[in-house]
Amino acid sequence: MKDYKPYERKTYYYETDQMGIIHHSNYIRWFEEARIDFLEQIGLPYDEMERRGLLIPVLGVSCKYKKAFRYGDTFRIVLNLQGFKGVKFSVTYEVYKADTGELHATGESEHGFVDSNLMPVNIKKVHPDIYERFVSSIS
Amino acid sequence: MKDYKPYERKTYYYETDQMGIIHHSNYIRWFEEARIDFLEQIGLPYDEMERRGLLIPVLGVSCKYKKAFRYGDTFRIVLNLQGFKGVKFSVTYEVYKADTGELHATGESEHGFVDSNLMPVNIKKVHPDIYERFVSSIS
Amino acid sequence: MKDYKPYERKTYYYETDQMGIIHHSNYIRWFEEARIDFLEQIGLPYDEMERRGLLIPVLGVSCKYKKAFRYGDTFRIVLNLQGFKGVKFSVTYEVYKADTGELHATGESEHGFVDSNLMPVNIKKVHPDIYERFVSSIS
Amino acid sequence: MKDYKPYERKTYYYETDQMGIIHHSNYIRWFEEARIDFLEQIGLPYDEMERRGLLIPVLGVSCKYKKAFRYGDTFRIVLNLQGFKGVKFSVTYEVYKADTGELHATGESEHGFVDSNLMPVNIKKVHPDIYERFVSSIS
Repeated sequence: MKDYKPYERKTYYYETDQMGIIHHSNYIRWFEEARIDFLEQIGLPYDEMERRGLLIPVLGVSCKYKKAFRYGDTFRIVLNLQGFKGVKFSVTYEVYKADTGELHATGESEHGFVDSNLMPVNIKKVHPDIYERFVSSIS
Repeated sequence: MKDYKPYERKTYYYETDQMGIIHHSNYIRWFEEARIDFLEQIGLPYDEMERRGLLIPVLGVSCKYKKAFRYGDTFRIVLNLQGFKGVKFSVTYEVYKADTGELHATGESEHGFVDSNLMPVNIKKVHPDIYERFVSSIS
Repeated sequence: MKDYKPYERKTYYYETDQMGIIHHSNYIRWFEEARIDFLEQIGLPYDEMERRGLLIPVLGVSCKYKKAFRYGDTFRIVLNLQGFKGVKFSVTYEVYKADTGELHATGESEHGFVDSNLMPVNIKKVHPDIYERFVSSIS
Repeated sequence: MKDYKPYERKTYYYETDQMGIIHHSNYIRWFEEARIDFLEQIGLPYDEMERRGLLIPVLGVSCKYKKAFRYGDTFRIVLNLQGFKGVKFSVTYEVYKADTGELHATGESEHGFVDSNLMPVNIKKVHPDIYERFVSSIS
């Protein structure tokens, strides 16, 4: 993934809660943003995959919160695609504060490939071109 | 709408923002909750309508915020269905604090009936049973 | 926790995504809803704790998605408070479809007690009454 | 506002609903994103204003939905600050699809200046520097 550019954006005001920090549920959404951005970078725009009938639901997700983000902060997510075996794969996330470079959170998500009826798909057989791009992106 | 029961629930922590109040965007979602609850009360569950290919997108929405809600508050929404003419209709909302009965916000939304391709549907012709329920619910 | 009533509500339309299912990030919010509901049931309303300067941020969260929820479904969350040691505790969640009783997801969250400056608090010393209620609620 | 750059970003997957379009409540959040981005462009970062004890709550908001956005679309918001009189002001929004330049939605929001106790503030007196920046940004 030598050419991969980490995902980065500023936090939104509506992502804060009354504790004065970013609500923890948003990190799960940030993971999705970063994941989809990554897919696009490796030539697999998610909207195009969906049009071809290929969905990538989340089978599991986890996040460890080390340090809070506040409104106005910019986060940077470095992700790694792991353990792809044609049916499932997982992604790990490191969430940094962009200006300090400090690690604020880590996470992981597991995914499967399914068709529009949410049935598992062997992408190596059904979508060999997508399979190739995935495999060549594994770290 | 003599038998209509206002929609009521407690605010959620994740709906707050760092101003220490419920973020204004959530009221728009509350309107949807109240609207769908109302449809169910008049015998038109929204999931069933969607299965019959009838969608009710929002064409416009507005909200006036008079007094903030805080986490822990319970809100109560009284709504009125208005001006139904077979193609479009509007709904007005009054959002009260449940324990004080004080009016905290008012709102309005406009809707149309469309099919699953998002094309307008004359429900009087296509879904006369739904049309009847709607008309009999106009205040 | 013999008198504890599981948390239950209908899914909202705005919680769906274009896959036609409830977006996975909402489960993390549901956990919070269930957790706060549980705290209230054991006599520890979260808004009151915050007014006393006690916050309970999330240190980690995870969810395994076994079966999707759809719009119109009602979920029921059974939770268990675990491993409370005065500084940190964890909560496990089982998310059932209310009408079938089928297990759709499981999850876990870790929490600490902090003051309004987000510094750790030993609640056994600082808030012994809260400590007592917590301890007596451990399964 | 000759140097003002419209706010632009790609829609997120989690912003879709099961109608296959962006859920209407998100536009209200987009308005906030665009508004805060605009404030930053005119030299008034919102986090800095909050640190100075100046909050800008939303008193009212409205949106007209002309054409749906879909996942993968990029929106562009052109906004105008209007009618600033030292206590209240309003902002109008035009939401375009970035690639076609087509107008998909319009909106408006009303705001007041309050202090951290949510009491109205005459910024001309209390924060003359902020007042000056605002006034010079009125179209």
